[in-house]
Amino acid sequence: MAKYKMILDLDTGIDDALAIAYALASEECDLIGIVGSYGNILVEDGVQNSLDLLELLGRPDIPVFTGLPHASTKDSFEVMPISAQIHGKNGIGEVKLKKADRKPETMSGIDFFIEAAHKYGKDLVIVPTGPLTNLAAALEKDPQIAKLVGKVTLMGGALTVPGNVNPVTEANINQDPEAADKVFRSEFPLTMIGLDVTTRTLLTTKETQKWRDLKTLAGEKYAELTDYYIDAYKVTSPHLGGCALHDPLAVAAAIDPSLVTTLDLNMKVDTEGPYAGRTIGDETRINEPALLTKAAVNVDKGRFVDLFMERLTTLFSKN
Amino acid sequence: MAKYKMILDLDTGIDDALAIAYALASEECDLIGIVGSYGNILVEDGVQNSLDLLELLGRPDIPVFTGLPHASTKDSFEVMPISAQIHGKNGIGEVKLKKADRKPETMSGIDFFIEAAHKYGKDLVIVPTGPLTNLAAALEKDPQIAKLVGKVTLMGGALTVPGNVNPVTEANINQDPEAADKVFRSEFPLTMIGLDVTTRTLLTTKETQKWRDLKTLAGEKYAELTDYYIDAYKVTSPHLGGCALHDPLAVAAAIDPSLVTTLDLNMKVDTEGPYAGRTIGDETRINEPALLTKAAVNVDKGRFVDLFMERLTTLFSKN
Repeated sequence: MAKYKMILDLDTGIDDALAIAYALASEECDLIGIVGSYGNILVEDGVQNSLDLLELLGRPDIPVFTGLPHASTKDSFEVMPISAQIHGKNGIGEVKLKKADRKPETMSGIDFFIEAAHKYGKDLVIVPTGPLTNLAAALEKDPQIAKLVGKVTLMGGALTVPGNVNPVTEANINQDPEAADKVFRSEFPLTMIGLDVTTRTLLTTKETQKWRDLKTLAGEKYAELTDYYIDAYKVTSPHLGGCALHDPLAVAAAIDPSLVTTLDLNMKVDTEGPYAGRTIGDETRINEPALLTKAAVNVDKGRFVDLFMERLTTLFSKN
Repeated sequence: MAKYKMILDLDTGIDDALAIAYALASEECDLIGIVGSYGNILVEDGVQNSLDLLELLGRPDIPVFTGLPHASTKDSFEVMPISAQIHGKNGIGEVKLKKADRKPETMSGIDFFIEAAHKYGKDLVIVPTGPLTNLAAALEKDPQIAKLVGKVTLMGGALTVPGNVNPVTEANINQDPEAADKVFRSEFPLTMIGLDVTTRTLLTTKETQKWRDLKTLAGEKYAELTDYYIDAYKVTSPHLGGCALHDPLAVAAAIDPSLVTTLDLNMKVDTEGPYAGRTIGDETRINEPALLTKAAVNVDKGRFVDLFMERLTTLFSKN
């Protein structure tokens, strides 16, 4: 099997940091670039976090691109207080990392998506784990790419459970419902990894202690930033009993779709009123022969958490 | 296999009339009674429709009970204009039926549920296709019944698609969200047949013509009332291209669960604010070992519509 070419579109945050590690630890895919988004942090801070984390993990060769700094319908962005509470003001749990020696690429993240779609076609897998602003912008600039790429496996949305921003809206989709709606209504071969499944895959300090015990720099730093996230979940989602592995689950499901059970559906995103940001089936396309989105509704949580720990622990043992 | 004992809880309505016919036409179950509810019509009008339809279909032996006349949180009920538009003012598309010679039973529908649960236990299947007011009242009067009965297969709710009253609420649940929430959070072995599946099972005048061609009274009356419903759908839901077989699908799925694909989930019903009446997974019980509700998310529509036509056409040919 040819290796997938993977692009991550991250608002690097703590679980985005875990997603980077999962992608680097997975031999099934080549991480060919990271596009930065706003969300958990400002776009420039997320880009810097991605650069610094790649350096920490021994992969300063992977390019990082800057994406758009705010929603498609707005002209600015401010980090929500809840985001800073969960991810820390610097996005990675106030953990200090050595600053990378390099800068982000000069090509925009949007152009990188388009170039990669034409270059790699069906071998390309895009994993957005933040707002869908960048992907919608790339689609608008070059509508062909929807049919070119192999798949888009995104972390975002909530179909069978309530949102985490309000009862209908998940945080990534909430940042830019209009962009998300364009992506969901497009011909991208979409898999939605939403709160339906990510709130079932949990990590506790019992697991992060294994990384600390490695006595490596990556092990220590990742244990530290993940513990910050676990502590935040104790306050924001005490019913879960751990932190949700949102973004790494999207990477894992992109690599091995058998980890999740999916429902075929044509979906849309509500963009107005009290339902804005809701990801839901489109009742006007329910009886069309082609159902374009695979919405994950269940997950083999034991197998995923085992894979996650096995891969990340091996990666951290070497860095 | 022992025959199921089935109780229908109906706000008799056009698709409720089709549900009665499906139950009578199915050898796998004995319809032991109908409990009347408010919703598509006033409770007394629905009870009268049930009595008259049973007479039309040659089964005046099946008892009809009167349920509660309004929602658990209200002290009155008025038919919504949209209900009258879809079902006609008399609930059965302004079709005139011979008035049954008998009256409803004197025992209340609530007490009938409780008595039947104790008498038939796991052999009892309850199919509510209106508001869940009666079932919630029975549960409140005798909480034991939740664990006694074989199953409850209800028509109501919308999990992966928007509602039909507003973007989050389906009509049956909308009538009494508090009662529905009690039923969804109970230990009833629940299957939810919602808009997710019922808007995929459609009937057109091509099918009803087959009933008219039978030249029987039941064939003619059912063709007439169903055509009223199909015409209403052309106005209210033109994207569907037919009328949705909501209530008969619940009866069919109660008899043959393999007609639908279900998702195991612990569910709740929102009862307040703009989300009132929404049926959704309960995020606080997402990781519990027991997932109590089976929510239908897909349906073998071809097989169901074939079964539906085969059974109803045979029944109408004899009456």
